[in-house]
Amino acid sequence: MPLFGRKKSPEPEAPAQHALPSLPEPPAARPDGLRSLADHRDYLLDCIEELPPFGQQILDALDLSLCEDIVSTVNLPGFDNSAMDGYAVQAADVADATPGSPVILPVVGEIAAGKSASHPLSPGTAMKIMTGAPVPAGADAIIPYEDTDRGEQDVRIFAPREAGQHIRRRGEDVEADTQVFSAGDRLGPRAIGLLAAIGLDKVLVRPRPRVVVVSTGSELVEPGLPLDSADQIYDSNSYMLAAAARAAGAQVFRVGLVSDDPEEVKQTISDQQVRADLILTTGGVSQGDFDVVKAVMPEMGATDFAQVAMQPGKPQGFGLIGEDRTPMIMLPGNPVSAFVSFEAFVRPAIRKLMGTRPYGRTAVRCVASHAITSIPGKVQLARGIVTYDENGSRQVELAGGHGSHLLGDLSRANALVLLAEETELVAAGDEVVVWLLNEDD
Amino acid sequence: MPLFGRKKSPEPEAPAQHALPSLPEPPAARPDGLRSLADHRDYLLDCIEELPPFGQQILDALDLSLCEDIVSTVNLPGFDNSAMDGYAVQAADVADATPGSPVILPVVGEIAAGKSASHPLSPGTAMKIMTGAPVPAGADAIIPYEDTDRGEQDVRIFAPREAGQHIRRRGEDVEADTQVFSAGDRLGPRAIGLLAAIGLDKVLVRPRPRVVVVSTGSELVEPGLPLDSADQIYDSNSYMLAAAARAAGAQVFRVGLVSDDPEEVKQTISDQQVRADLILTTGGVSQGDFDVVKAVMPEMGATDFAQVAMQPGKPQGFGLIGEDRTPMIMLPGNPVSAFVSFEAFVRPAIRKLMGTRPYGRTAVRCVASHAITSIPGKVQLARGIVTYDENGSRQVELAGGHGSHLLGDLSRANALVLLAEETELVAAGDEVVVWLLNEDD
Repeated sequence: MPLFGRKKSPEPEAPAQHALPSLPEPPAARPDGLRSLADHRDYLLDCIEELPPFGQQILDALDLSLCEDIVSTVNLPGFDNSAMDGYAVQAADVADATPGSPVILPVVGEIAAGKSASHPLSPGTAMKIMTGAPVPAGADAIIPYEDTDRGEQDVRIFAPREAGQHIRRRGEDVEADTQVFSAGDRLGPRAIGLLAAIGLDKVLVRPRPRVVVVSTGSELVEPGLPLDSADQIYDSNSYMLAAAARAAGAQVFRVGLVSDDPEEVKQTISDQQVRADLILTTGGVSQGDFDVVKAVMPEMGATDFAQVAMQPGKPQGFGLIGEDRTPMIMLPGNPVSAFVSFEAFVRPAIRKLMGTRPYGRTAVRCVASHAITSIPGKVQLARGIVTYDENGSRQVELAGGHGSHLLGDLSRANALVLLAEETELVAAGDEVVVWLLNEDD
Repeated sequence: MPLFGRKKSPEPEAPAQHALPSLPEPPAARPDGLRSLADHRDYLLDCIEELPPFGQQILDALDLSLCEDIVSTVNLPGFDNSAMDGYAVQAADVADATPGSPVILPVVGEIAAGKSASHPLSPGTAMKIMTGAPVPAGADAIIPYEDTDRGEQDVRIFAPREAGQHIRRRGEDVEADTQVFSAGDRLGPRAIGLLAAIGLDKVLVRPRPRVVVVSTGSELVEPGLPLDSADQIYDSNSYMLAAAARAAGAQVFRVGLVSDDPEEVKQTISDQQVRADLILTTGGVSQGDFDVVKAVMPEMGATDFAQVAMQPGKPQGFGLIGEDRTPMIMLPGNPVSAFVSFEAFVRPAIRKLMGTRPYGRTAVRCVASHAITSIPGKVQLARGIVTYDENGSRQVELAGGHGSHLLGDLSRANALVLLAEETELVAAGDEVVVWLLNEDD
């Protein structure tokens, strides 16, 4: 019997051929059998790991999160340079210049951007200089064209400048060896510009997660095709969630519809795992007799199905699927339930994969423009329309009905209104908390 | 001499071999020789046309603007259907049901989503029904599983329901022949979902404009390469503007650096026209002796170079280039000037090409957290950092210096503070107007 490591160990059991991953202990249900929204979200986020860092060209790193601190190796500017088109001079030489009594200096050279002067500036002389060009040694001020006659051999200078004026000093923007970004910073267009300015063409970032979106349900028909019978409906979830995942920063693969046939569901998920950092399904996770996702996914990985204390969106499923432990979030099939669940759980998961904090939407306060009733015991996530008054203060009104199928209202909404579990009534004028759906916060 | 058309026309003059387009009359300069920021922006927007409509798959239409009104041809839902897993009944049959004295009904069928019942429901019977499944004729209420014993042959029902309860009515979300979107609407994820739900797989939208970005300047070096001499600098503008254009919705082609050689500039612009809806250059539009863009572009099209009453960003160029009259915006070369000009002129131009209103950034009010001085006569666009207090009110402080080369400060900023031409001093606590750079408004 071989020895493993330093200590004599009991012989390990042969691993099962298709060992399924296990999940950490899920949070305990409350006395009412439900799991709180926050508990469920935190549990999912604990089970999902940030994607490993990846080197990207800086332009492709737009909106991604840095995985390294960035220290500038160069000064910005790299050398003292002119802020104006004009003449480099010694300030003392032109101290008495006026329009009526100009100072006349010989022009002893011309400096373009990217070209240093061949020799230092001697007292009593001027050099023509372009914006951005290196200030010659010996010069301590720039006289802009508009205060000169733009002379070529000699220049007439009509006004003085203080020493240092119109000169951008080496390192005054960014000094060499200064840290300009930290790991975790998200790169916007101006940050991309600064990275280029300090000479970086590539950075380590977390890549865009590959999210596979699947709708399940034998009643679903692909948009653009005719409905064969009066009982069928068009699939909207996979389009809406694919678009929402893309808007959240993911690279999205929308897979065609999958029927309620268990083998078809298993085969589809198995096929998609290879290109997925996250699998997203809708439908088949409720109490119904045909809830196929809930029925078959436990065969493919470690799963957790919970009743979450939220409305809509109560039935929720999660799993780590196959040997790669690919995270899979199984959302309910009602379109509004699916969308609300996306905001509560999937968007935070995508942002954790990307390393983009905060993972969840920022909860902002808003004045209710009319009274809102709520059912205690669950977090209500109602569709709201937020408007701004002249002072920038936010008001919110609910968008239409409470039904979890009302896509028309959802489409008009720009916010989700979060009504806490203990809330029964919000009076008109009271504050509520909302998630602003059109902001990328 | 042949006759053209109905009337005998004078012989047309032979068109010039390379007829250049002309521009509309530019706005008159003010007495100080400058053009106002608003005049310049409006002039550019007048010269630029929205891109023609293009049919797109709905998922690829995310964030794009509709070019057609959308009328739903279907009802949503398409049929009365169950909002719960449970039993379809006649409400009158179960009016007296209690936990202690349940009503017992024979289960005469089972209805899955996508499958209609084979026959109407007779009084005194129940049919098992899944969420989303069609409510059978004759039934007028759904009893959820939790108020039953989930019986298969007979079901014990422990509580009544009002007629209509848990039934989603045909058309209650969207009625057939209702207009759900208007031309000009921008499509977010929830709108994509609604388009799918009413069966549309393609819509007419304005496509993403193809924006070509070119940096000019012989002093520029590509990031990632060594600086050959102390006078060179890394190109940051083309990266920053390419990223900003992409964030604004454009499809971006960043072209390598172009030197100050006139032939190279002309050849590059000529080569790029074929794939550009908008050409963007930085550098070479000031008063300097090497300002090559300003020197050569009038040979290639109708151009307009103006001094705009803004700081930074005073020198601005615009043109309609070549036979295709491709719009070209020529920005100054200082990084901060280039970025500010992008926000003031290029982003509105991109949004006009896309048909996305409002073209310009929304000006929002903000409290100045410290005093700000300004130079009257020009609009100052200062870099600001906006923060929110607990009530959601905005404060802004300036980010660092006034210099138009300070990329470090620009990178930290999240707003541009607009100080009007007449402003000399903003006291701490006074309101200022800002553009919020990280919002996609």
